[in-house]
Order: sequence, then structure tokens, then C-alpha cells
Amino acid sequence: MKKKAVILLSGGLDSTTCLAIAIKDRFEINALTINYGQHHSFELIAAKNIVNNYNVKNHKIIDIDLSKFGGSSLTDNLTIPKDRNESDLQNIPNTYVPARNTVLLSLALAFAETINAYDIFIGVNALDYSGYPDCRPEYIESFEKTANLATKAGVSGHIFSIHTPLINMTKADIINKGNELGVNYSLTSSCYDPFKNGDPCGRCDACYLRIKGFNMSKIKDPLNYSG
Amino acid sequence: MKKKAVILLSGGLDSTTCLAIAIKDRFEINALTINYGQHHSFELIAAKNIVNNYNVKNHKIIDIDLSKFGGSSLTDNLTIPKDRNESDLQNIPNTYVPARNTVLLSLALAFAETINAYDIFIGVNALDYSGYPDCRPEYIESFEKTANLATKAGVSGHIFSIHTPLINMTKADIINKGNELGVNYSLTSSCYDPFKNGDPCGRCDACYLRIKGFNMSKIKDPLNYSG
Repeated sequence: MKKKAVILLSGGLDSTTCLAIAIKDRFEINALTINYGQHHSFELIAAKNIVNNYNVKNHKIIDIDLSKFGGSSLTDNLTIPKDRNESDLQNIPNTYVPARNTVLLSLALAFAETINAYDIFIGVNALDYSGYPDCRPEYIESFEKTANLATKAGVSGHIFSIHTPLINMTKADIINKGNELGVNYSLTSSCYDPFKNGDPCGRCDACYLRIKGFNMSKIKDPLNYSG
Repeated sequence: MKKKAVILLSGGLDSTTCLAIAIKDRFEINALTINYGQHHSFELIAAKNIVNNYNVKNHKIIDIDLSKFGGSSLTDNLTIPKDRNESDLQNIPNTYVPARNTVLLSLALAFAETINAYDIFIGVNALDYSGYPDCRPEYIESFEKTANLATKAGVSGHIFSIHTPLINMTKADIINKGNELGVNYSLTSSCYDPFKNGDPCGRCDACYLRIKGFNMSKIKDPLNYSG
């Protein structure tokens, strides 16, 4: 029997590759998508298409309106940075959503515990990223410890593991790995500010990192950047 | 100027006493109540009444439907245990909500970071409680470490503190402390399975602990247990 895993699936390139890795590693997939009030809710459509593509039986979509707190251009009325370069990415931009990965992982933990799954996958990456503190290995290790102290399962002898297979990969490495595993990147959505039809803006940090990754991987990005 | 604090306020006896302690400690109160799909949603009304009573200006109510995961009698179609005694409380009952305090604290952290508050109060108690692992000091310490690694504020030199003023108090101690601080316990709701008018059942674990606490404190519980 396959081991159950919970996969945080945003609908982006990273989480989709993470899903493909969990499938390759022979986990039974239970996908979790969080509608947290992000303006780029097109990624929720992408997540549904990806789940259908992989024939995932258990997909939960949880609504939680983090825009009530605000503090991020992804949920609030702040301007999403555009046309930035590598050096701009050193500082944490306003696309940072306060405590987002802690909220996402806590929900993944709740989901996992109810289905007796002890493996949680999250597609965080600490190389080609925007400096978000909750993508770093030391954060993930700390959350894992907290998860094991937090839960009935954790104090009953089970051990929760937070899997971050992409954490030390470049975006090009991720794309190459996904390509090897047959990921259909035309289904994914990375852009923070897509056009109404879902096409990426090509100018935000998420597009910048994706475009750079595809360029370095020598694989062609199937998305349409012409607007 | 007062320091800002975020207070997790369920509407129960513990979180209300915790709020009174934070006020006494001269924090500016920002209250957070989570509607997580609990059957005993009467406590949300209690939370609103308490916030009004204390004239708290900033009260956020966040909806997140943990019943989509299930796994607890507080959100699911399981039977809430009744008429239990002290020894029954040694085992974690089905009122345990998987990862609840991690979800609550992650949302408190998100709220705190957006308003530049670094003090979070939660009314957990590890003496007169139902053995929930996410009420223990070792869990709280671990979450605090995680919070500081998770956030832009945490990596920018601010230090988040999770305050648990009740953690080592008996229920009677808590009631005595609240009484000293003028808490109006008639506004609070502790019961897991109240009657439609909000009156407590008097038979669930939460009522058991509350009744025992009032008995030992020699203060009269203003709630009506006659059903």
C-alpha cells in the first residue's frame, strides 16, 4: 500500500514539480490548495487542471481570507513590483505575505493528521526566490519540530516529515527535473499579476524567475508572454 | 505609547481572562477570533460581546472551515463525550481538533506582523485541560522559534513572543485572577455543546473543567446550567 502524503499545490511551477516528485516517490497524493485571497486567483484554476491531469482523487480547496490582514501586494492594494533584476531580489519585496507558509503548513498538518498522513510536501525554494524567510531550510526544520509537538499523532509515536525536494535547486534544475518527470508546464501559472485570460504579465518577480529558469534550462516555456 | 498585542479570543473563560491580563499589562489590544467551523459557534457571539465590553477597537474575525478536514467532534459528526470524570481526561478526547492551535497561532502571527505587533497572547492551559498536545509549554516554545524564523519581522531584528499567562494555572487560579481583574464571566462561553440559547450543557469536558474550577475558586459561575 502506498504511503499517504499531503501536497501543498498552488498551481505554480514549483508545487507542480513537487507533486510530480511525490508521485515518482510512490506516495498516494492528497492535494491541498489554499485560496487565501490572492489577486492572482487564476492559479486556483491551474491547480484544479493539474489535479485533473494527474487524476488525484483527494483535492481540498480551503478558503481563508488573508486580505483581511493585508500587508502584501498579493492580497492588498499595493503595487506589485515589475521589471526588476537580480539585485532587486535581495530585499524581501511587498509580495511577501505575512506568515503565509506557516498558515499553509499548519493547514497541511491539519489535513494530514485527519487522514493519517505523516508526509507533507511543499515546493519552497531558497535559491531562485524572493528572499521570503519562510522558504529557508532553517524555517522548515523548525516547523517540522513544531508539527511533531503540536499533534496527537506526533505525541503518539508518529513522525511528521516536511519534504522540500526543491529547496536547494535552481529554477532551471526544477524545470529540468519536471521535464524529466513529464510535467506539463502549460497547465501551471506562476505570474503574480496575470491578464484576465490567465496569460502571464512577464514583468513581475515570479515571471522573471520563471523566464530565467526556462532560458537556463534550454526548455521552451509553453506559456504565452505576448499578452 | 502602548505596545500592540494580538490576543486570540475564542469567547471562552480562558481567553477572556488572558485578554484581561494583557490589558492589565498595558498592551494595546488587537483581538482575533477564528470561526473554524466549530459546532459551538455561540462562542463567536460571546467573543463579540467581550470585545464590546472592553471597547476593543480592532477585532478581526477570520473564517476557515476546518470541518472540510473533519477528524474532531467539534467540527464533524462525532459524538461529544459527556459525563466524564477526571481520569477520563488523561486520554486526548475526540474534541481534539487536528493542529488547531498551530492554525490559530499562524493566523495570529500573520495579523501581528501586518500591524507591527510582536506580542501574541493565547489562553492555553496545561493543568486543567483535555491533554491537547498543542497546549503544552514545549509546543508553545517551539512555535515561538518557528515564528521568528518564518517572518520578515523576525529576520529583521524583531522578536515575536507568545504569551501564555495561564499555562501553569489551575482553572480555579484562572477564575480567581479574572475575578480580581473584574472579568465578567457571564459574557463567556465554554461549553462544547450549548443549548440553542447559548446556555451550557453542563456535561461536556469543557463544562466539567469550568464547573470544577468555579467550585474550587468559591466564586459563583454566573452561567445557567439548568438547561
